[in-house]
Amino acid sequence: MKGFGVIKTPKTGWIEKKKPSLKGNDAILRPIALAPCSSDTHSAHGGAGVKENLILGHEAVAEVVEVSSEIKRFKKGDVVVVPCVTPDWNEVGLQDRNINNAHDSSFMGSFKFLNSKDGSFAEFFHVNNADANLVHLPKNVTVDQALMTCDMMSTGFYGVENARVKFGDNVVVIGIGPVGLMAVAGAKLQGAGHIIGVGTRPNCVELAKKYGASEIINYKEGPVDEQVKELFPNGIDSVIIAGGNANSINQALRMVKPNGFISNVNYFDSKDTISFPTLEWGLGMGDISIVGGFCPGGAKRIERLLNMIANKRVDPSLLLNKSYDGFEKIEDAFNIMHEKPRDLIKPVVHIKW
Amino acid sequence: MKGFGVIKTPKTGWIEKKKPSLKGNDAILRPIALAPCSSDTHSAHGGAGVKENLILGHEAVAEVVEVSSEIKRFKKGDVVVVPCVTPDWNEVGLQDRNINNAHDSSFMGSFKFLNSKDGSFAEFFHVNNADANLVHLPKNVTVDQALMTCDMMSTGFYGVENARVKFGDNVVVIGIGPVGLMAVAGAKLQGAGHIIGVGTRPNCVELAKKYGASEIINYKEGPVDEQVKELFPNGIDSVIIAGGNANSINQALRMVKPNGFISNVNYFDSKDTISFPTLEWGLGMGDISIVGGFCPGGAKRIERLLNMIANKRVDPSLLLNKSYDGFEKIEDAFNIMHEKPRDLIKPVVHIKW
Amino acid sequence: MKGFGVIKTPKTGWIEKKKPSLKGNDAILRPIALAPCSSDTHSAHGGAGVKENLILGHEAVAEVVEVSSEIKRFKKGDVVVVPCVTPDWNEVGLQDRNINNAHDSSFMGSFKFLNSKDGSFAEFFHVNNADANLVHLPKNVTVDQALMTCDMMSTGFYGVENARVKFGDNVVVIGIGPVGLMAVAGAKLQGAGHIIGVGTRPNCVELAKKYGASEIINYKEGPVDEQVKELFPNGIDSVIIAGGNANSINQALRMVKPNGFISNVNYFDSKDTISFPTLEWGLGMGDISIVGGFCPGGAKRIERLLNMIANKRVDPSLLLNKSYDGFEKIEDAFNIMHEKPRDLIKPVVHIKW
Amino acid sequence: MKGFGVIKTPKTGWIEKKKPSLKGNDAILRPIALAPCSSDTHSAHGGAGVKENLILGHEAVAEVVEVSSEIKRFKKGDVVVVPCVTPDWNEVGLQDRNINNAHDSSFMGSFKFLNSKDGSFAEFFHVNNADANLVHLPKNVTVDQALMTCDMMSTGFYGVENARVKFGDNVVVIGIGPVGLMAVAGAKLQGAGHIIGVGTRPNCVELAKKYGASEIINYKEGPVDEQVKELFPNGIDSVIIAGGNANSINQALRMVKPNGFISNVNYFDSKDTISFPTLEWGLGMGDISIVGGFCPGGAKRIERLLNMIANKRVDPSLLLNKSYDGFEKIEDAFNIMHEKPRDLIKPVVHIKW
Repeated sequence: MKGFGVIKTPKTGWIEKKKPSLKGNDAILRPIALAPCSSDTHSAHGGAGVKENLILGHEAVAEVVEVSSEIKRFKKGDVVVVPCVTPDWNEVGLQDRNINNAHDSSFMGSFKFLNSKDGSFAEFFHVNNADANLVHLPKNVTVDQALMTCDMMSTGFYGVENARVKFGDNVVVIGIGPVGLMAVAGAKLQGAGHIIGVGTRPNCVELAKKYGASEIINYKEGPVDEQVKELFPNGIDSVIIAGGNANSINQALRMVKPNGFISNVNYFDSKDTISFPTLEWGLGMGDISIVGGFCPGGAKRIERLLNMIANKRVDPSLLLNKSYDGFEKIEDAFNIMHEKPRDLIKPVVHIKW
Repeated sequence: MKGFGVIKTPKTGWIEKKKPSLKGNDAILRPIALAPCSSDTHSAHGGAGVKENLILGHEAVAEVVEVSSEIKRFKKGDVVVVPCVTPDWNEVGLQDRNINNAHDSSFMGSFKFLNSKDGSFAEFFHVNNADANLVHLPKNVTVDQALMTCDMMSTGFYGVENARVKFGDNVVVIGIGPVGLMAVAGAKLQGAGHIIGVGTRPNCVELAKKYGASEIINYKEGPVDEQVKELFPNGIDSVIIAGGNANSINQALRMVKPNGFISNVNYFDSKDTISFPTLEWGLGMGDISIVGGFCPGGAKRIERLLNMIANKRVDPSLLLNKSYDGFEKIEDAFNIMHEKPRDLIKPVVHIKW
Repeated sequence: MKGFGVIKTPKTGWIEKKKPSLKGNDAILRPIALAPCSSDTHSAHGGAGVKENLILGHEAVAEVVEVSSEIKRFKKGDVVVVPCVTPDWNEVGLQDRNINNAHDSSFMGSFKFLNSKDGSFAEFFHVNNADANLVHLPKNVTVDQALMTCDMMSTGFYGVENARVKFGDNVVVIGIGPVGLMAVAGAKLQGAGHIIGVGTRPNCVELAKKYGASEIINYKEGPVDEQVKELFPNGIDSVIIAGGNANSINQALRMVKPNGFISNVNYFDSKDTISFPTLEWGLGMGDISIVGGFCPGGAKRIERLLNMIANKRVDPSLLLNKSYDGFEKIEDAFNIMHEKPRDLIKPVVHIKW
Repeated sequence: MKGFGVIKTPKTGWIEKKKPSLKGNDAILRPIALAPCSSDTHSAHGGAGVKENLILGHEAVAEVVEVSSEIKRFKKGDVVVVPCVTPDWNEVGLQDRNINNAHDSSFMGSFKFLNSKDGSFAEFFHVNNADANLVHLPKNVTVDQALMTCDMMSTGFYGVENARVKFGDNVVVIGIGPVGLMAVAGAKLQGAGHIIGVGTRPNCVELAKKYGASEIINYKEGPVDEQVKELFPNGIDSVIIAGGNANSINQALRMVKPNGFISNVNYFDSKDTISFPTLEWGLGMGDISIVGGFCPGGAKRIERLLNMIANKRVDPSLLLNKSYDGFEKIEDAFNIMHEKPRDLIKPVVHIKW
């Protein structure tokens, strides 16, 4: 079968591979809607070490082609939503209460696509623990909406959850690309007061306002924290980092109040260093929590997000402002994601078989 | 001075009293907008024992007339929002982390109006710990919106907080009077999926939908829990009780899932008994939490709610569908609240001095 | 093979059955140490409906006899600790964050022994999801200590967790049988100040003090709540119900403070009714949380408890004050548990094959 | 009156000052037991900027000399425990639920001694909000035990609270000086399994074991994280930093598991920089929470700690291994704290008037 991915870092292209096969407790799917992600392009170009002969893709709505005998909830022909994080639920490490399931047997161990197996940019792809990880596409949710739950909405909303947003909090979201935009929408749906988006691209600024941003800070017009402090001299309740770089932590520290939260969902560059004078962190005495996590996975999480969409709480498909048709267009979609033209938010590829 | 209240239970009317005086750390106000509450009528008619010579009223926007010398944040002439719960912040009992501040030195001790002193249906009224309990009316919030934060929005939202509503939860709100309507709005602003309102009055039903109800259950058409179970056979994540009676607990127990929450903000009748077969509570093994609390108070809470309004997250003034002008109209407003005609949601009295 | 259980409610005795067989992802064990539980006797005598031809037993240390091909962590001959609650970790319902895993697909669904299959009072017994539910017996933990983690310590400590015991809390434990004694030990290990045990049996009283009780209330000397209120006029932070009956809820409500917790781990009689005047619950306004749950299961929980024992934080084997040797003695142990002589705390059966 | 403090950074000595006077809602005390703290010596020598004519001292048991008219709970002659953190409870910033009260109107604003007024190393000293901040010395708690709650036990236990220690967690405590030793004791009283202390001084090592340390790591024998990883290859649940320096954060990051907590209670040097490669923090994806806070204050917190001592859960007076008698010995006690001889844990000065 054919798939698009990394031939050898940084060279990407089409790869010929054997169709994946069932091992038990799993399913084989074929994609009907796909979205490339900046972590695909990041990874393809060496962000997580050298990759070779690896099919990319971890955001997909798909059709079930084949399931293991023990699978009870799904059958051939079902249309399903596939979370980007698919834990092995038999791992003991997942049993602790109140933890993120993204790390099953090890750090990010539940992120199978990209990290430990081929992804969904293929004629066929494999999903482990299918009963526990797949979700039927609900009737009143579109394919595009569902596609945006796999990673973008789940990640953006996770940033909000870790920021512990409470009724009436003032929240800054650094970066208003697709994940940051979902963080804005999520902060609104946790009852934030002011939501201050940091970004410059006109499409993103417009959409941020639609999703609930009350103010926009343009980082080109001066240091972000100084602009925020001018608006909110007493500081901010929480900061969600959904873009920027290692220095965003410093910006966040300079604007957050004592007892505040800094929540990162940005995949930092592995060559970067986070570095702040102890004074910026209140000498370790300011009760500022710094946390950063990968989005949780599994069927239940996606069901929750789909339930919000079905009830018109949010429409994440507004992110998709560039659409392609046909399996072979994965390449174009990947390339545009890599080039990131100024007006792109997120591309989608629709596939008919 | 003149005030409206309980002459002697159950007789209500105008009372002549001495103007309240400052004792230190406090303020004297006069009301510019008032709302009678069903706990005023409940209390006037003996719901909390016999009352005598007591001025009612605990929802007010007011003008500062006089402040103690130590008051720093307010001065004569300021327009302020007055929470219905005004804790004495020097009480040691309030220092515990993560508790409701409604119970300062004792059960509901922070509810001073109505419980331990005259209320705001008067030419002048007293507020303890003024610096810590009053809030300036913000520029971009109307008097009516602000008035609805004092109790209705604070209480309805507290019901949501205790229900621990999470992204994508399905939530039932029993009772869609003004508090229940705010619970609907609050559940939406915590990211609920389905929000099922229980009620029948057309104005309330319409407003419930506007605030975010996805379904309405009419309790006249059959047992509430059976209707809910028909829609959600696997049960509901949480139930907020904002109306009904002691039996609402039973309804809630019959529709909530294991690990679910039942959150009461309804002031139960002191003659009622809550009674459920152990089976309805899963023999005590179902991890169903039952909690009921009075709305928290203080300046910070009201600031948070006003911040949500200022940022257009919710407009609680939609509750006010009956308006009166003039101090002497407090009596009419009180009476209509007592009679509760089918089309009333919540009355307001505006006063010019 | 032979097993001891319910021939038909309420008749108990030895049953001849086919040896259980592997279905995938599971293991067959044979017991080396067993403890009968009051839920065995309760269940045998009709407490949970009529049972027929059911082998009892859900507290066991055992030897692995056979495992499915996919099992990775265990092999024939391993000595393992078996939690009484063995969830099916592929159930979507378990994926929610911060929930009790006892209810996998339904209320108490993770309690397989006794509820949906034969228990461990047999020559051989079956454990589902063996990799995720079994734990190797650690070197520095005795068989008896390990045996007490399966249910007694897990349940008693769960009562403490749900009571949200914080540093310096005053806690009442109603019932100081084996579960209540573990609740006393658990409350100490969460930093409680006063721990007040309610009970009368001398062995239990003595052990309660050893485990950390600072005071003992004898319910024969007057109403429990009145005795507690005399010692603590301002009320108690939390009450753990590990014995008593439906009326214990009323006692608890009468002694707990506003913002307090009532945590039940007592399996209530299915014919009982919990009934309290609204006044006892502060008219629904007192911020008193009432929760009751079944003990969580799975390997990780047991590993945590064993880790505490291995580090000498607690010794639960002190509960075992009656010991039997030999498989056929299960009957005597069961009978003594049923009769509950005044000096019995918990019996154990050791088996050599 | 006379007091000991900073004449001008870094010169320390005896200072002559006017006796403090009452301003309302406050009290004047004179010390009967005092302990110098490393933050006194740190501050005296310029750690928090240049200080001049400032009396040091913030750990005290004292006698009430005079109270404001509004003070209800205390009178002349009472013996009281004085928390090092004494919030102004009328500050709105303190009203948020579930926050540390150490930051009343601003970062560390509740730390009045040392930061904004004279401390307790004086013939007389002042305490704001006396009713809410002072605690009567309980009968069954010694003066020395009580003295250790003011800062050492409160701070060490706060480190444990922020580390979210759960039953059976494995916890590392970096630094086993007086605060670290209390963190060890606190971790035990939250149910930790292994508690690994990092330190070398024989007296401290011995006491760490007494308080509950299961292992001791000597940082002179190799990198701490490597030694810990050798014992616990899968990582540690949480790390409490109660000593060391900015680099301790890096050590902690290298040994903590995904979903783990790093809790700092060490007052970092204001000239230091915290700096870690993103890889050490799992590229921001590891769900590792980093938090650092100042100990909470107020009467309730101290009451809780005293309640634990009164019930024999812990004896913090074991820290005091060097004792002085007489007011004028404050100087010696301060100097020995500054010199920190290898066998010193914590000195105390007892004063009779």
